[in-house]
Amino acid sequence: MKRYIVIMAGGIGTRFWPSSTEDRPKQFLDILDIGKSLLRMTYERSLQLVSNEHIIIMTNKKYLDLVKKDLPELPSENILCEPSRNDTAPCIAYAALHIKSRDIDSSFAVLSSDHVIHFEQKFVTAMIKGFDYAEANDCLVTLGIKPTRPDTGYGYIQFLQDDHEVKKVLSFKEKPDIDTAKEYLESGLYLWNGGIFIWTNHSLINAFHKYTEGIIDVLSEDVKFFNTSDEQSYIDKVYPLTDKISFDYAIMEKADNIYAIEADIGWTDLGTWASLYEYSQKDDNGNVIQNDSAVVIDTSNSIIKVKDGKKILIRGLSDYIVIDEDNALLIFPKNKEQEIKASLKKFEN
Amino acid sequence: MKRYIVIMAGGIGTRFWPSSTEDRPKQFLDILDIGKSLLRMTYERSLQLVSNEHIIIMTNKKYLDLVKKDLPELPSENILCEPSRNDTAPCIAYAALHIKSRDIDSSFAVLSSDHVIHFEQKFVTAMIKGFDYAEANDCLVTLGIKPTRPDTGYGYIQFLQDDHEVKKVLSFKEKPDIDTAKEYLESGLYLWNGGIFIWTNHSLINAFHKYTEGIIDVLSEDVKFFNTSDEQSYIDKVYPLTDKISFDYAIMEKADNIYAIEADIGWTDLGTWASLYEYSQKDDNGNVIQNDSAVVIDTSNSIIKVKDGKKILIRGLSDYIVIDEDNALLIFPKNKEQEIKASLKKFEN
Repeated sequence: MKRYIVIMAGGIGTRFWPSSTEDRPKQFLDILDIGKSLLRMTYERSLQLVSNEHIIIMTNKKYLDLVKKDLPELPSENILCEPSRNDTAPCIAYAALHIKSRDIDSSFAVLSSDHVIHFEQKFVTAMIKGFDYAEANDCLVTLGIKPTRPDTGYGYIQFLQDDHEVKKVLSFKEKPDIDTAKEYLESGLYLWNGGIFIWTNHSLINAFHKYTEGIIDVLSEDVKFFNTSDEQSYIDKVYPLTDKISFDYAIMEKADNIYAIEADIGWTDLGTWASLYEYSQKDDNGNVIQNDSAVVIDTSNSIIKVKDGKKILIRGLSDYIVIDEDNALLIFPKNKEQEIKASLKKFEN
Repeated sequence: MKRYIVIMAGGIGTRFWPSSTEDRPKQFLDILDIGKSLLRMTYERSLQLVSNEHIIIMTNKKYLDLVKKDLPELPSENILCEPSRNDTAPCIAYAALHIKSRDIDSSFAVLSSDHVIHFEQKFVTAMIKGFDYAEANDCLVTLGIKPTRPDTGYGYIQFLQDDHEVKKVLSFKEKPDIDTAKEYLESGLYLWNGGIFIWTNHSLINAFHKYTEGIIDVLSEDVKFFNTSDEQSYIDKVYPLTDKISFDYAIMEKADNIYAIEADIGWTDLGTWASLYEYSQKDDNGNVIQNDSAVVIDTSNSIIKVKDGKKILIRGLSDYIVIDEDNALLIFPKNKEQEIKASLKKFEN
């Protein structure tokens, strides 16, 4: 069975302001300051599982050039463009129909383009296990992330405790409150939903037919256009007519054939500046400094990101976020980060 | 007697980092955010005393284009270029010889291009009084600024207490320590040295001959070149040979015919960010914000200067200096400003 990896790279990146903007969202940024974007890291990670002919990037038309620039060696026919923002369920259905038109007997995994996975070898091992299981059984597989703290920012996957290495999933839970999150963590029966899925095309398309007529029927109207030069104009016509719904709501919360592989792979969705801070290497004062000419005095436990070449002289900050971009400057206490979004609304007044 | 005003605009602006740089020093900046540079403000203030044909700008060759751009209506022959940095005494001697070549019977005032004078009408009145006195007496006149606090950042002028409106100067004092500054203030016999001087060409050139052979003799070698098309090449040859010395050291601390006019004109040399903060209008939280799209929360008594159009979101700073330029960012406690200069040396390591 031919294996593919689908990387979803169409998000608009409302977090990570001011670095991430709608014109250049998070997945295209070198947010870790290591010389490559999160998308490129995801792509390179995927190459450990499949060749690049079998890597498909799903993105918005608006970001086509950004993807091409970031992944110049990727065959351009492997970049599929959504003509409208209809959430993740139509996106994944489109990927499934496209891959089916290439290889009728195929399996594929779905990855987010803007997450980080620290332990790549563990990831590869878990993914291969997932592919093997999905291809041997008519089911939908997800890598569930072993929780390390009662995080209220993630969805959870409840699984059935038994002797099997691949666990039957009982339910998907939305982001919990802190008490619930603590219960989840203590029970040992929950995993974080990291948005990493594996299935055969056959099983997935069956699930779409079972649960989402408003998506699969719309996209399947004229499947002869897939994998032809007319695919984009066909998609431009039908894709905007699909139901706007997330894949979790549309399929994962309804399907009864979901299985989870517990994965301890150093995953984070890098959803906040504080999570980038936590993930990154600190200096002796607990600072994360992304800048090559910084003089930082009496400053600790802060994340400072200013483009290389720009001199910065900072003194007397503790637990701060300092992010400078050409068109915006953020100086904000790290423990108030959740209030940034509301504060940004004041710009509109 | 023909009156001139000489504005010294050759300083390299080591303070006000990162806004002021050697390529574009303080006098050329709109540091008050009012739409004109300090030089332009000084120029416009001078127009209340003389026509622009009688305003002479002394600057370094490097800044000729900046002066022309800032004062496009000034006759270009009124911009005199120093070919080397030899401090203020040679600069003023050059101005004197140049003006003498235009009008042998003339007087002139010297102003700094990067100071602020808040009460312009009082300034004009005091200057006229100074011109009148200098033209009627063979002496050197200075406007002494009435001190409002025991400032240790300024030089002081000690004067003879008597009934005359124009006071005989007894001595020039260098920057004092705080106790001495307090004594000066309490005695009522000291003024700040604001670097504002008025004299006739005759009296000044006499003083140069008396005290500074290494300057006036060098520059006077071939006075026929002044006010001709060969002036610049002549100056390029002789000016670098003059003694490098400040006018205060060379003349004012030695001459015995100095008189002071007490001036309460709202003068400041704007020597520090804190002084700009003090001088500027504050919002309800005591902040001075030079930016048109700022969202500032839980922040007080701070000066924030970021180019218009750049969004800034700042929270939780108190008594801070936040200055953002294209190539540098400063975030520093206001009461530690005197340590910025030392901190900047760390960039060189």
